[in-house]
Amino acid sequence: MFNTIITPRFGDVDGLRHINNVSLIEWYETARNEFFQIFNPELSLDAWNLIMVHMEVDYLGQMYFGKPVEIKSCIIKIGNSSLTLRQEAWQGGELCARGDFVMIHFDFKSQKPVALTQEQRGKLQEHFVEV
Amino acid sequence: MFNTIITPRFGDVDGLRHINNVSLIEWYETARNEFFQIFNPELSLDAWNLIMVHMEVDYLGQMYFGKPVEIKSCIIKIGNSSLTLRQEAWQGGELCARGDFVMIHFDFKSQKPVALTQEQRGKLQEHFVEV
Amino acid sequence: MFNTIITPRFGDVDGLRHINNVSLIEWYETARNEFFQIFNPELSLDAWNLIMVHMEVDYLGQMYFGKPVEIKSCIIKIGNSSLTLRQEAWQGGELCARGDFVMIHFDFKSQKPVALTQEQRGKLQEHFVEV
Amino acid sequence: MFNTIITPRFGDVDGLRHINNVSLIEWYETARNEFFQIFNPELSLDAWNLIMVHMEVDYLGQMYFGKPVEIKSCIIKIGNSSLTLRQEAWQGGELCARGDFVMIHFDFKSQKPVALTQEQRGKLQEHFVEV
Repeated sequence: MFNTIITPRFGDVDGLRHINNVSLIEWYETARNEFFQIFNPELSLDAWNLIMVHMEVDYLGQMYFGKPVEIKSCIIKIGNSSLTLRQEAWQGGELCARGDFVMIHFDFKSQKPVALTQEQRGKLQEHFVEV
Repeated sequence: MFNTIITPRFGDVDGLRHINNVSLIEWYETARNEFFQIFNPELSLDAWNLIMVHMEVDYLGQMYFGKPVEIKSCIIKIGNSSLTLRQEAWQGGELCARGDFVMIHFDFKSQKPVALTQEQRGKLQEHFVEV
Repeated sequence: MFNTIITPRFGDVDGLRHINNVSLIEWYETARNEFFQIFNPELSLDAWNLIMVHMEVDYLGQMYFGKPVEIKSCIIKIGNSSLTLRQEAWQGGELCARGDFVMIHFDFKSQKPVALTQEQRGKLQEHFVEV
Repeated sequence: MFNTIITPRFGDVDGLRHINNVSLIEWYETARNEFFQIFNPELSLDAWNLIMVHMEVDYLGQMYFGKPVEIKSCIIKIGNSSLTLRQEAWQGGELCARGDFVMIHFDFKSQKPVALTQEQRGKLQEHFVEV
């Protein structure tokens, strides 16, 4: 499990005075840095090897400006070249959103999927949660 | 069907030199304005009556800076108080992403769902596509 | 003069129900595409040759969701390797913001400024406005 | 002086593989929360009383993904109803950007500036730096 604290930005709120649904998607990306390091310890863009193929988000409760949000991230599925990351957003003790993100281990030069290595599988397994 | 042309912004591209997956989500929101007018002809924030509860996006191909993107939006499901909007993103004749967005007709004062009116159903029906 | 029409996105509005000051900065960038083509006709990222060194924005009036915004861009200063782009944002016939953006003609490989060519100067001159 | 640590998001990088100039403006806003509390301890949107009228940013060095950015904020000018906030962005020990933001103490109901109170002046003074 990876935990990331997000400070809502004034402009993350929309005209309904709750957090805009798009801002959450940005927060989820910010909270993936530690996960990215499994694939790319230095977070080097030249060596980037992941591509997003599917995202799915349930908005369970509204979030607001002025209180921190905790993003909890874990791995819920490990495929051949793909994996699924689950990311929850919590504010004030309430689960406000849950998102599943399917990414593929990808070679941007050949533009093709690449099987996960044993080392990657091992590290992903450390953050695996049965759902 | 609603059609919206999006001009990618220089900053919509990320370090992989393709459109960042989050930017697409912003574009989808921009392309919902015409759809929003079914519920709120003046797009008045005081009268806002829709809330996002679920989004699901398939990234089918990469998009790039420098060429316009067309977002095609239609209704694929009409429930009691909810509806599902499908939004496709096309660039250079290729379908690059498909997203389904479930929204609820919602009263922000009472914080409760409200059944769709006959008038709303009629207008949604005009943009309905069987999938 | 370059003219670009921007459709405000629902999430561009913040908790004050006016356009967030950051969203305007994104719009300005979107409206620079035509200007960028003076330096890079294909908008190729490999051949990119401009870097932002200074921006300065006056917020003169509030902008709102639901009405298009026109960005008018022109050149107000041409230096040796630098230039200043002025961008105005108009909504409903009112000038709502004015921004000056200083960019440098830049070689990203050597990380050094490069003098503007005669051809670039000529094209910039076509969009020059005395202020 | 207020200090805020920002974690660059993957999508904050643009096609030049440095931080996009717009993302910095979002970071500056995030880093204003502590400053906002001088005017609005609960960060309540109903009681919001500040409006941005001018921003001015010098981009002094490029910033990159994968390393934290520190935003240092202080007050450099206190007017009758206005104030100027200076915000520096530091990455890896280097000053990469400096921005000055002029805001007005503002009554959104009457849409008029309001003189700063003695209490506000006192708190602003605590973060004042001579430049």
